[in-house]
Amino acid sequence: MSGQENSVSKNLANLKAKAEDEPIASFLDMRLLELSEGYARVAMKLKPEYINFNGMVFGGIIMSLADQAFAYGTNSVISPNVASQFNIHFVATAGVDDELIAECRVVRVGRRVCISEMTVTNQNGKLIAKATGTTIPLVQNQV
Amino acid sequence: MSGQENSVSKNLANLKAKAEDEPIASFLDMRLLELSEGYARVAMKLKPEYINFNGMVFGGIIMSLADQAFAYGTNSVISPNVASQFNIHFVATAGVDDELIAECRVVRVGRRVCISEMTVTNQNGKLIAKATGTTIPLVQNQV
Amino acid sequence: MSGQENSVSKNLANLKAKAEDEPIASFLDMRLLELSEGYARVAMKLKPEYINFNGMVFGGIIMSLADQAFAYGTNSVISPNVASQFNIHFVATAGVDDELIAECRVVRVGRRVCISEMTVTNQNGKLIAKATGTTIPLVQNQV
Amino acid sequence: MSGQENSVSKNLANLKAKAEDEPIASFLDMRLLELSEGYARVAMKLKPEYINFNGMVFGGIIMSLADQAFAYGTNSVISPNVASQFNIHFVATAGVDDELIAECRVVRVGRRVCISEMTVTNQNGKLIAKATGTTIPLVQNQV
Repeated sequence: MSGQENSVSKNLANLKAKAEDEPIASFLDMRLLELSEGYARVAMKLKPEYINFNGMVFGGIIMSLADQAFAYGTNSVISPNVASQFNIHFVATAGVDDELIAECRVVRVGRRVCISEMTVTNQNGKLIAKATGTTIPLVQNQV
Repeated sequence: MSGQENSVSKNLANLKAKAEDEPIASFLDMRLLELSEGYARVAMKLKPEYINFNGMVFGGIIMSLADQAFAYGTNSVISPNVASQFNIHFVATAGVDDELIAECRVVRVGRRVCISEMTVTNQNGKLIAKATGTTIPLVQNQV
Repeated sequence: MSGQENSVSKNLANLKAKAEDEPIASFLDMRLLELSEGYARVAMKLKPEYINFNGMVFGGIIMSLADQAFAYGTNSVISPNVASQFNIHFVATAGVDDELIAECRVVRVGRRVCISEMTVTNQNGKLIAKATGTTIPLVQNQV
Repeated sequence: MSGQENSVSKNLANLKAKAEDEPIASFLDMRLLELSEGYARVAMKLKPEYINFNGMVFGGIIMSLADQAFAYGTNSVISPNVASQFNIHFVATAGVDDELIAECRVVRVGRRVCISEMTVTNQNGKLIAKATGTTIPLVQNQV
């Protein structure tokens, strides 16, 4: 195993360990399903607590799930890698009984800035939202 | 009081009533502080549960607070008025003991689309995030 | 051919005819290469006139090319279909001798709002920019 | 005059000199009206060449004007300071005879990332578009 591969493996193992003890993941019941270099998949079971005043699933919950995949995906290539910007398009409404899946794919890895794409789908693969975002590596050494 | 004013007052009163019994507002402990036509202000006390794997306040929580102001602000002019798009810039990190305030100002009210601006600040008025968003009125009658 | 197919064909033929006589397409030397329902591809040869004060290709030119694909792609499903919002990530710098290609894919077609994705690549397929956008159908009849 | 002030003055003078000989500014007939630290104002007279296939002023032209203010505003604080992301909301249509003004205000200056806000108005002060954007300083020395 090369030094580079070794470093990537260590970073992924480190992130997975952190994921098991993450306060916001417990609070929002988000589970990291898959993590590889430049990719993350996260699940969340919706709950009645997430309903807003219009009787719909709160947009901030959808954004939180996308943001969690974004955080893991971007930190899989460089860590810490902090969000500077996030844009989301809501494509379809989610149902309160849905189990949602968010995926993040890092499109560009740079020393100064990374760009990523996220999708949120439901248990049937229906597209719920699409997002993109900008992250800034705090330490400018690629893992 | 004109019919138009009457209708606006009824809509605002209706929204405030809904705000008192909103599941996501209870779950995330968000309080509607002020609501007028085209404007909303919402508060949230941060908690240790909101910390992410990097030891920082989770971005999805900041987005949720901005989204709540966005929802009330846009529904104050037309209701229901559903988010189609949301873009946020994270300006400074929040502290876990912060009490955050989000404000929404509706920039453009249209029959087909509304555009809004949001800010998130902490208890000292420090800017934490800026956001903008697009909403679509489901019923094309302005309140 | 069904009435629906006929209507789509007429709309595409109509758009292609308009494309041959479009002032901004001539001014920026943009060529519509392909148009089908929900998809458009547009080319632009870069020129020394597009250089900015830092000696780089002006971002507004990249955005213009993406916007042209966006306009054709979205008007291929509903016309007129007017841009309300556009977000772009600049992934790599373009060279002044590049011939750029922008593609638009409509992700969601709705009566009230459409959501699209755009990419800009150079003659070697290198990714230059990614964008997403929101359009509002002015007449609420799908073609 | 302190060294810091001197450096800012030199950077502004340098930018103004570059603005007089900028290819894209000539091509799109954009004039830098005002430049100070963290602020720029740029004007553009619309032309019949800017009309698109729907008979409206092309969105890419509005974006180009906003992008030019963005470039000058962000380079007034750190130079070179390159756009990574740009989001725009189209608020009202422009007329082909309009003279548009774009303003940029830098909201946050950081060593790693800057965030800015732009507005586009017409000759009567009517709001045409609002935008925000992310720039990355290429050299991490603040001017």
